[in-house]
Amino acid sequence: MSFNTFGHVLRVTTWGESHGPAIGAVIDGCPPGLALSEADIQPWLDKRRPGTSRHTTQRRELDQVRILSGTFEGRTTGTPISLMIENQDQRSKDYSDVATAYRPGHADYTYDAKYGVRDWRGGGRSSARETAARVAAGAVARLIIPEVRISGYLLELGGDAIDRSAFDTAQIGANAFHSPDAAAAERWERAVDEARKAGSSLGAVVECAADGVPAGWGAPVYAKLDGELAGAMMSINAAKGVEIGDGFAAARLRGEDNADAMRAGPTFLSNHAGGILGGISSGQPVVARVAFKPTSSILTPVQTIDRDGKETEIATKGRHDPCVGIRAVPVVEAMMALVLADQKLLHRAQCG
Amino acid sequence: MSFNTFGHVLRVTTWGESHGPAIGAVIDGCPPGLALSEADIQPWLDKRRPGTSRHTTQRRELDQVRILSGTFEGRTTGTPISLMIENQDQRSKDYSDVATAYRPGHADYTYDAKYGVRDWRGGGRSSARETAARVAAGAVARLIIPEVRISGYLLELGGDAIDRSAFDTAQIGANAFHSPDAAAAERWERAVDEARKAGSSLGAVVECAADGVPAGWGAPVYAKLDGELAGAMMSINAAKGVEIGDGFAAARLRGEDNADAMRAGPTFLSNHAGGILGGISSGQPVVARVAFKPTSSILTPVQTIDRDGKETEIATKGRHDPCVGIRAVPVVEAMMALVLADQKLLHRAQCG
Amino acid sequence: MSFNTFGHVLRVTTWGESHGPAIGAVIDGCPPGLALSEADIQPWLDKRRPGTSRHTTQRRELDQVRILSGTFEGRTTGTPISLMIENQDQRSKDYSDVATAYRPGHADYTYDAKYGVRDWRGGGRSSARETAARVAAGAVARLIIPEVRISGYLLELGGDAIDRSAFDTAQIGANAFHSPDAAAAERWERAVDEARKAGSSLGAVVECAADGVPAGWGAPVYAKLDGELAGAMMSINAAKGVEIGDGFAAARLRGEDNADAMRAGPTFLSNHAGGILGGISSGQPVVARVAFKPTSSILTPVQTIDRDGKETEIATKGRHDPCVGIRAVPVVEAMMALVLADQKLLHRAQCG
Amino acid sequence: MSFNTFGHVLRVTTWGESHGPAIGAVIDGCPPGLALSEADIQPWLDKRRPGTSRHTTQRRELDQVRILSGTFEGRTTGTPISLMIENQDQRSKDYSDVATAYRPGHADYTYDAKYGVRDWRGGGRSSARETAARVAAGAVARLIIPEVRISGYLLELGGDAIDRSAFDTAQIGANAFHSPDAAAAERWERAVDEARKAGSSLGAVVECAADGVPAGWGAPVYAKLDGELAGAMMSINAAKGVEIGDGFAAARLRGEDNADAMRAGPTFLSNHAGGILGGISSGQPVVARVAFKPTSSILTPVQTIDRDGKETEIATKGRHDPCVGIRAVPVVEAMMALVLADQKLLHRAQCG
Repeated sequence: MSFNTFGHVLRVTTWGESHGPAIGAVIDGCPPGLALSEADIQPWLDKRRPGTSRHTTQRRELDQVRILSGTFEGRTTGTPISLMIENQDQRSKDYSDVATAYRPGHADYTYDAKYGVRDWRGGGRSSARETAARVAAGAVARLIIPEVRISGYLLELGGDAIDRSAFDTAQIGANAFHSPDAAAAERWERAVDEARKAGSSLGAVVECAADGVPAGWGAPVYAKLDGELAGAMMSINAAKGVEIGDGFAAARLRGEDNADAMRAGPTFLSNHAGGILGGISSGQPVVARVAFKPTSSILTPVQTIDRDGKETEIATKGRHDPCVGIRAVPVVEAMMALVLADQKLLHRAQCG
Repeated sequence: MSFNTFGHVLRVTTWGESHGPAIGAVIDGCPPGLALSEADIQPWLDKRRPGTSRHTTQRRELDQVRILSGTFEGRTTGTPISLMIENQDQRSKDYSDVATAYRPGHADYTYDAKYGVRDWRGGGRSSARETAARVAAGAVARLIIPEVRISGYLLELGGDAIDRSAFDTAQIGANAFHSPDAAAAERWERAVDEARKAGSSLGAVVECAADGVPAGWGAPVYAKLDGELAGAMMSINAAKGVEIGDGFAAARLRGEDNADAMRAGPTFLSNHAGGILGGISSGQPVVARVAFKPTSSILTPVQTIDRDGKETEIATKGRHDPCVGIRAVPVVEAMMALVLADQKLLHRAQCG
Repeated sequence: MSFNTFGHVLRVTTWGESHGPAIGAVIDGCPPGLALSEADIQPWLDKRRPGTSRHTTQRRELDQVRILSGTFEGRTTGTPISLMIENQDQRSKDYSDVATAYRPGHADYTYDAKYGVRDWRGGGRSSARETAARVAAGAVARLIIPEVRISGYLLELGGDAIDRSAFDTAQIGANAFHSPDAAAAERWERAVDEARKAGSSLGAVVECAADGVPAGWGAPVYAKLDGELAGAMMSINAAKGVEIGDGFAAARLRGEDNADAMRAGPTFLSNHAGGILGGISSGQPVVARVAFKPTSSILTPVQTIDRDGKETEIATKGRHDPCVGIRAVPVVEAMMALVLADQKLLHRAQCG
Repeated sequence: MSFNTFGHVLRVTTWGESHGPAIGAVIDGCPPGLALSEADIQPWLDKRRPGTSRHTTQRRELDQVRILSGTFEGRTTGTPISLMIENQDQRSKDYSDVATAYRPGHADYTYDAKYGVRDWRGGGRSSARETAARVAAGAVARLIIPEVRISGYLLELGGDAIDRSAFDTAQIGANAFHSPDAAAAERWERAVDEARKAGSSLGAVVECAADGVPAGWGAPVYAKLDGELAGAMMSINAAKGVEIGDGFAAARLRGEDNADAMRAGPTFLSNHAGGILGGISSGQPVVARVAFKPTSSILTPVQTIDRDGKETEIATKGRHDPCVGIRAVPVVEAMMALVLADQKLLHRAQCG
């Protein structure tokens, strides 16, 4: 990973600001001959698109992707795939008060401290809008790993967790929260409504499982599959924690309880490891969890300073998600797809 | 990060197996003119060294580091620094029963699945012995960031956490567990003794804080400081989770409670963010937490299979740490130092 | 360098095919705060643009560049700069006979052998059209190294060399051949006219000098300034040879004649080395030379095979440069600028 | 390529100075299961070893390589292969007069300008001794490409070229100059004797051909096979020029003469291209040529300055090769092997 490029042999470079003319991704190293058109990418972008329910930002973006290179007669050519999404609803004026002060919890201050530039239009490059480019790239990555099925969902919202025993895969696509537990989705709806009205925001925990990953993907010791996933997930806006398998709970288990016993097949009698041992996939489902903090841009006033260092307070009036974790689900899935596809190719390079 | 190399402009390549003749690290991109001798590295290795208390593996290693290149008249020259540590106490015979079956929870099976090779001598490259090379490299990284003070300690062992209100920095070096809470250290002593006698093992949570990091380090969006830390920490043996700042707890806060308000200075009224906003350091202490699972090599028999796929069970008799999290503390510190030093140089490249 | 990305800390990713909707470049790692608008890039593109004289392809392209990201209020922000140039005159039908057979000397056969795809529209990604993206990126690189003046010119065309004693810098921009020798330019005009009429093509040698490079840029041993330049120049379409300083002629000198003696200052009494010693700039002008083969797409019929392996012959009727070396001059300059800017930042990373 | 690491997926990091305790290479990404012992590497080192004839430096080095990691029971494991060669005949005192002044043509001045360090012991890291590590790594790379036969030889020494019509492969190993022309070897013997006695030195041109490379290796546009070769070859000490196929002579051919016509097979009727079209191998022999300048360390006094900038003159008395080009032959072969092996794996990653 280097600045704005992600991956080893499948390399994705994203570009664009929240309020510039467009955002995009260049995907390099994609195998040739894969059937690819905009129709393979658009559904994933639609899943992430803002404005689809009252629980997400009311910014209206069509998020229509265009393939500018890398395909010929509907198939990938092996050359870079350039994807572009034009920005449409860029009401920069919404940000006029943000322009003068830093939003606590946001990247406003640190970008300015680093670059000496204050692009106040919706956070510029630090905006979660960049994640649309990840989702588009992830759609291409999925084509490289047809053997893998990736499923992301919300485990927890505002501290309220699902009931694991009520986990129903069919529910995930049936509510606005990607919740596998219908009852939780109902409670979350009320919670998000309340937070939005209160000018507040909520955090969330996303889980993502990848089935069908064969044993052997991942590359010790600094390109371990879990290390790559952790880096990839933590690079998503608002992410504050990453777990693989049992994660922090594993630190509370005894050795004999944490060890996933093996039987002929091989099969495993449990999956505390989350499908990764020594940085290499074991053939079990690869499971990652990501914690998202509550949105930093809130209507509730917070103490802050302006660019001159003077004390003030700020209330962010723009159109913001009351819970960024909801729309993070397809982004987490995309990062899972990108890491797995890259590791598949990397494995093929070394091991044939 | 690529296979066995870590970093962007400060690049560390480690090599070596648990039971080969030696292990080592090559550090590339180190600034010239820094005073460096073995004496700058050895104390950190001693901190990680096995066999210093009954709570760690009884393998005896002097872990004496030798600088083979990159210095002249006691100073770094800007050329690669090659560090080598000879292995001494490699009782391969200890592993004779391990040779025939896979240890559940260990990398035995996945390495074999990936490479078709079964180096049964102490886990080969997957052994935590590799982390000695990281600690040696981390000692060099520290010299690049003299403005930063890094402190690692155990927060939790076997599910038993310290009392934050009893946090005493002076205690950290005063007990065998790097515990900032003397009472917890006493309880942990009993817990580790119990687990060792029971042929079991325990997990732990390590926290690491870096003070003195100026605002501006880190590089969005795929080389974010938190993304890099997450990848680095998760690449440590037995790590299963990483948090920055409040981590998973942030997902349970409301926006106004999570936002670290700013006052003139700038100072921050809290540090929920763990010193990183938008992937860039804010000037506050950088705080990361890492969860370590219990050691996989345990005396308690576990169901497993052998290389032919036949079902059997295994009890690992070698000399193993009952809690790898204890000796992980200097490793976590080393990864923190390596990430920060690399990001300092990277920041200097782009922003002068 | 990796597939379609070039550079270490200043990284350029280019994308696009000759006959797709557009081509482009994403520049990552550019320092913030540099004044940048399309007007800083367009003049260099115009210099490379086809159709400006009868000596180059008659394809008509405006080559109008658009900055899609990475600037705010006319200055670079430190985030990725996305440049796009729309293709306009893509007469794919011109290539109908090319579609069925491989042009000898061209990448037609090897791309097909590698990827199993035959994008016959003007060479697809292998087209020299890609070099427009390099020129655009090079224009940005120039802003990072204001202390350096880069000058490229033709030394030789169709085997007819300039007279070094008639070298006149003012002439370079005054003729269609970037020739520093007016008499040579006249002879070349006749030669190119003759070749075009004969349905043939000619090769050329380009030299590029960079004045003002301070001593100390370059990074041994695998990122040497000369190694980087050689890789960069050889990656240009149709390049077959690269020399630094005296190049192959140095192999014919005796040691005492090749050594550039030093006097106080330091000044050097000669520059056989081309400004690079041990891979690091010496403070003298950095001088590189690149040999370009004659255009492969010619009207003269050549024996070849079609995709089914059947023998045939081919005469390329499209609109092609009779001498690609002429339009290569701004491309060579761009690669010089990109390498130097990257090495400047890399030097700053390590040595402050 | 980054500082001291070379390659994309087969990555080689070298370390060590001319007069330190040892030099070495770490090879990462090597496929598992290859038979490898010191006996596979030693012959290539012996070919490069100094002191084997009176035409090379009289420094005595056994250049005995030791494998410190990455193999198990005589086969590669897929983990990093660490190779070490101890320095033995390090007569640092030989360099006492060099310590006070810069050798013109050598890296002495530029290393000092860059790093502010003057490691006068035989050039430190800039010494051609580093190339032993490349040769060792190249021996491993050869095992990855058993389908390829690499042959390097001297074409020209001190400006005196071989007679191509007298080319005899059997002669290459039969004389001290790797000359395929016995008559040239005799002339070169006299020339080198004369130069050594005169306290002077001579340049040389090395050619290297790789047979058996299948069509399809190489990756446009910035990891082209020829671009990679050019960068790799120019990174060798004393290299000043690189050509692929006809090289600079191609710039003097007409299009129809340069085009390698194709017939069924496919076979090619000529190989002006040197086996590479559009940066991708064509299935023909890959041919590169490298120009080496005369050794900079000569007994003939040359004007120079000392570290304080005062004017002086220098005559280098150490033990130096009168023609570094001779011992460069196995180094050029090693770089060819490393580039091809890396590209083979890279091709496998993307195209399966």
